[in-house]
Amino acid sequence: MQGLTASCKIVLVMFLLGLGLAGATADSRRRHISSSPDEPCKKMTLYLHDILYNGVNNTANATAAPVTKPTDLSTTHWSNGTFFGMLVVFDDPVTEGTALPVGDEEPAARAQGFYFYDKKESYSGWFSFSLVFNSKACRGTLNLMGADPMDAETRDFSVVGGTGDLFMARGVATIRTDATEGLFYFRLKMDIKLYECYV
Amino acid sequence: MQGLTASCKIVLVMFLLGLGLAGATADSRRRHISSSPDEPCKKMTLYLHDILYNGVNNTANATAAPVTKPTDLSTTHWSNGTFFGMLVVFDDPVTEGTALPVGDEEPAARAQGFYFYDKKESYSGWFSFSLVFNSKACRGTLNLMGADPMDAETRDFSVVGGTGDLFMARGVATIRTDATEGLFYFRLKMDIKLYECYV
Amino acid sequence: MQGLTASCKIVLVMFLLGLGLAGATADSRRRHISSSPDEPCKKMTLYLHDILYNGVNNTANATAAPVTKPTDLSTTHWSNGTFFGMLVVFDDPVTEGTALPVGDEEPAARAQGFYFYDKKESYSGWFSFSLVFNSKACRGTLNLMGADPMDAETRDFSVVGGTGDLFMARGVATIRTDATEGLFYFRLKMDIKLYECYV
Repeated sequence: MQGLTASCKIVLVMFLLGLGLAGATADSRRRHISSSPDEPCKKMTLYLHDILYNGVNNTANATAAPVTKPTDLSTTHWSNGTFFGMLVVFDDPVTEGTALPVGDEEPAARAQGFYFYDKKESYSGWFSFSLVFNSKACRGTLNLMGADPMDAETRDFSVVGGTGDLFMARGVATIRTDATEGLFYFRLKMDIKLYECYV
Repeated sequence: MQGLTASCKIVLVMFLLGLGLAGATADSRRRHISSSPDEPCKKMTLYLHDILYNGVNNTANATAAPVTKPTDLSTTHWSNGTFFGMLVVFDDPVTEGTALPVGDEEPAARAQGFYFYDKKESYSGWFSFSLVFNSKACRGTLNLMGADPMDAETRDFSVVGGTGDLFMARGVATIRTDATEGLFYFRLKMDIKLYECYV
Repeated sequence: MQGLTASCKIVLVMFLLGLGLAGATADSRRRHISSSPDEPCKKMTLYLHDILYNGVNNTANATAAPVTKPTDLSTTHWSNGTFFGMLVVFDDPVTEGTALPVGDEEPAARAQGFYFYDKKESYSGWFSFSLVFNSKACRGTLNLMGADPMDAETRDFSVVGGTGDLFMARGVATIRTDATEGLFYFRLKMDIKLYECYV
């Protein structure tokens, strides 16, 4: 029944100690902007589990469902199609390790949003979603969007905003397909680096 | 026939007067970043009215329409469903007070975008839209996105960009369901606070 | 077989030379924020070509396809409708000149994302997409979103994020309908100005 185990609150400990501000409250947070791509102000690695409804027998487990069908274009180049035009809405569990939550265990976050397939010639997706954190360690959201050309080993989404403990965050999430099982499950590893934070 | 009554142009009056720059034009606007969450550079409270097409007799009034149907997953947990998978496209009036515009009256802005329902177990939405201002007091857009877990009394969207009078804005919009009438009308109160502005 | 001919890497040449940093690598890039709307840190003009699937005979050329149908609302005010509710997914070629790529020529970028029509009374759209650059001159993405009220001669989208060579970019893209051919082709001229860059 744990959410994110480490706090997502962004604290520059050395900085605060150095100035004797260890008791600073959220209200006195100040803006921090990284001076280079090598120095994110916050890092997280999280796993997104997409369990797609198969239309038959996984209603209990499914956390994502197609809401539009692939278009005729999808079958132009590939005999089995590239799902061009299929849009999926999801409320996926997000974990700190690779395993799905067991029993009553709460995931570290939920990923709520959508993706669709947008290419005739190969598998290529486009995502927009919120990471919704709702535990003692972290309460707030990150909002992401970006292209997912699956031919590439890693792809980058933009973190375009944040709220709550992740107030006004911006950054980049590097995505890797970490596992797939048939057509109805995939797991994305997300290395999230924030370069704008309030600390 | 009024749009937004107060100008949305972001002006730090004291600052400008102090420097004798009262005549500064838009071209000499300068970037302003809030140093803390307590000090937004701009605040607005607006009401979004979503009048959903019922498929029967409200074509004249409706400003939003479902373009996909809820999936089978929607009825798993609730007898009446949670609309999981229903995507709605909207061009909703946005007002400064709670009342809908009367007659020829222009709303303060239009909210143009979409939302969908993304959860099996409860009502939960996800929004992305533009606030389009087109009056003498304010011409420009704000672009927003975020999760809308309706169990929570307030939810936060990110303001991820702005154009025109709201050039390069960023911030947070705190949303509250202010009123609902059956399944085909809701009003959201949006407390918008911008923390990045050009002034 | 060229992508973008000019590098999209953002370099302040005078600045770097002045400090003897001409050999600076990407790792030592530093954040640059424009001090006024007149001084973008990067400008690009690009053309987006949307070739819509007509459902009949253009499968080979089409790069976009409708995945939802217009709603009944679409025909309320106009006899031929305003496509209210039609959502289109696209993987469109983006070029530096107005011409479509010929033969094996690679476009400067791909625009991957979606748009939909959201108004009863007139043509009005809403876009969200990534510009995906994948050439020697430029590798990375820009993420955009915004309203497209087609009555206006120009419309502004927000550039809400960037990755790779366009790491953490923000800005505004001014859009103009540059050409249309019937219902199944349009070309948008995009004047993109970035006001936040890492250089």
